[in-house]
Amino acid sequence: MFVPRGFSYVGVHCRIKRRRKDLGIIFSEVPCTAAGVFTTNVVKAAPVIYDMEILEKNPGGIRAVVVNSGIANACTGKQGMINARRMAEKAAKELNVPIESVLVSSTGVIGVQLPMEKLEAGIEEAVKNLSKDPVPFAEAIMTTDTKIKIHSERVMIEGKEITVLGIAKGSGMIHPNMATMLSFITTDAKVSEGALKKLLKISVDDSYNMIDVDGDTSTNDMVIVLANGLAGNTTIQEETDGFWKLYEAVHEVNRVLAEKIVKDGEGATKVMEVEVKNAPDRNSARLIARAIASSNLVKTAIYGEDANWGRVIAAAGYSGARFNPDRLDLFFESAAGRIKVAENGQGVDFDEDKAKKILSEKKVKIVLDMKQGKAFARAWGCDLTEKYVEINGRYRT
Amino acid sequence: MFVPRGFSYVGVHCRIKRRRKDLGIIFSEVPCTAAGVFTTNVVKAAPVIYDMEILEKNPGGIRAVVVNSGIANACTGKQGMINARRMAEKAAKELNVPIESVLVSSTGVIGVQLPMEKLEAGIEEAVKNLSKDPVPFAEAIMTTDTKIKIHSERVMIEGKEITVLGIAKGSGMIHPNMATMLSFITTDAKVSEGALKKLLKISVDDSYNMIDVDGDTSTNDMVIVLANGLAGNTTIQEETDGFWKLYEAVHEVNRVLAEKIVKDGEGATKVMEVEVKNAPDRNSARLIARAIASSNLVKTAIYGEDANWGRVIAAAGYSGARFNPDRLDLFFESAAGRIKVAENGQGVDFDEDKAKKILSEKKVKIVLDMKQGKAFARAWGCDLTEKYVEINGRYRT
Repeated sequence: MFVPRGFSYVGVHCRIKRRRKDLGIIFSEVPCTAAGVFTTNVVKAAPVIYDMEILEKNPGGIRAVVVNSGIANACTGKQGMINARRMAEKAAKELNVPIESVLVSSTGVIGVQLPMEKLEAGIEEAVKNLSKDPVPFAEAIMTTDTKIKIHSERVMIEGKEITVLGIAKGSGMIHPNMATMLSFITTDAKVSEGALKKLLKISVDDSYNMIDVDGDTSTNDMVIVLANGLAGNTTIQEETDGFWKLYEAVHEVNRVLAEKIVKDGEGATKVMEVEVKNAPDRNSARLIARAIASSNLVKTAIYGEDANWGRVIAAAGYSGARFNPDRLDLFFESAAGRIKVAENGQGVDFDEDKAKKILSEKKVKIVLDMKQGKAFARAWGCDLTEKYVEINGRYRT
Repeated sequence: MFVPRGFSYVGVHCRIKRRRKDLGIIFSEVPCTAAGVFTTNVVKAAPVIYDMEILEKNPGGIRAVVVNSGIANACTGKQGMINARRMAEKAAKELNVPIESVLVSSTGVIGVQLPMEKLEAGIEEAVKNLSKDPVPFAEAIMTTDTKIKIHSERVMIEGKEITVLGIAKGSGMIHPNMATMLSFITTDAKVSEGALKKLLKISVDDSYNMIDVDGDTSTNDMVIVLANGLAGNTTIQEETDGFWKLYEAVHEVNRVLAEKIVKDGEGATKVMEVEVKNAPDRNSARLIARAIASSNLVKTAIYGEDANWGRVIAAAGYSGARFNPDRLDLFFESAAGRIKVAENGQGVDFDEDKAKKILSEKKVKIVLDMKQGKAFARAWGCDLTEKYVEINGRYRT
């Protein structure tokens, strides 16, 4: 794991949750250029509203992000907004930075107010324990996650070594009340505000947004990138060589984290990757890939290791995309091999035993060749299991 | 049960399925005015394409519908179209009516060709057994359904007694490869083509389309209404008193059948009715009601009898409707009582024991009072259980 220059991390237990860590801070020695992508849910948690304002006002001067897990601070009204601000205020005071340089984030149960005394005591403790180790932070932002999610990449730009480190939480299936997905990317690259914003947007579209099931976005979803410039490169501008190099590194981090989220899906036993190729246009490809990856029927078929290709074609059909169904070729693929199950929209004879063997792997790929254009999209999903029902039927109480 | 004049029904076993009935016919003594609503899935089964053409050409002269279960005749290419036509042809021959007076319908597994010999032998046998009893027909169109679905209503129009009888199949959850939903409405009313078409459309929008989960429509979905005019009323025209009286009867039949479908949901133990009121507009109300009724998280919470209201609010938020979240009041309701769980978008203290008791009933109502307009919508859903996963993980093989 590579850690970017000038960032420190911490995670502590402030007793919002019974036992596990529940408060984390990321801190940069110097002001960062920052950008964020936030939930499109009409119901936005207080920290989301708060951060959108801060990033609007002060995108060039961010120093820290403070995050709690256990309580989402969503559907909490005016008191929720006051608490989000108090969280930033307390962190700013302890870190000795301006309040408008602190972002906040929460994940957990909706509709409950934050216990501010515990939280503020936790912030005091956390600030004393900042270190170069991002693991405690990764632990502190977990909810139903069973594993921490960290990935880093290194890239040379203009002879300068640039590091990108991402830390995420989220567990696979749709999970609106638990703030499905938080991701914090830190890098020592020097990059303009416009370039950073653009780079984040296009990367999120092809990573986290392709594991986002049925447009389900939680009240708390956010992806934040902080770039502190300590790598010493000249400022990266939009669409330059440096821009695309940095994009590659950031996107690889996001892609890996997105896959880790899917893999950690609630009750999931398998990951599926859906590849839609030769589609009429990019938007159709994306709609179809997501419809397939999020279909309960495809998910249960994958779980049952059943080559039920009709469900895949039907999901493409109701995705909202317009296309010619009589051209579709469909394949199932995994470490155990590859098999064609439909051609020109119709079933072909295939070896059911081979299909079963392919589907029995932990990672299964569904490839839909539409043969009616050049566009491509990839989405990720996990299977739907009895365990998912068990977890979600009994989560809150 | 009331049976409309001049219609006969039959269901037989032609051996597409191993044991249960799998072929049904509805026949009218005289030509019917007919209308249909079909799946919006881009991938349409052969019988859907066939019927859309017939109804375009001959909406005033329909005599029969022939339906098989077990095989959907979807993703079957040219051969599938030929087989759909042969099915109509054989029924027309045996019933001694013109081929363009026969509609066809199929439900079952996708991507398999119909066994035409069995089917044609079945049609011969069926025609000999037509009767006034709609039950065998209702049995013949079942797939994973555990119960037959029939409902009838009677209404007086111009002193004439008019009967509406509906027969449907479908089992609750999204089920694209099984042709979620078929419904056949027979009535002895005399009604103009335009009026019948309009009446069906508005009724379907508020019944079957409100149990349609996430816009998931199967390749085979269809609702057909046949009106043979034998009640002797003068032809009902659009938007007259008679129109609305007939609408009431047809809609009551559709509403009851839609609820029966939800109740028979795969693995379902509970039915939920979602009522969205005082919404800014009708479209928003519909989007929100459907998003809540189709949320996996709401479904699992209802199954777990957990008053997890945050999931309901979050589903409203990602429905695609625009609204002010700070006005929402939310209630859970059942035979065991009613409880307010959120007010003005925030949680309120409520008695968890009482909530648990309310949610332990077989039918649970979720009422969202948006307090920002006059529009209303109602949607139906069922809970999501381990049993659903079991059924769908192992269905095809």
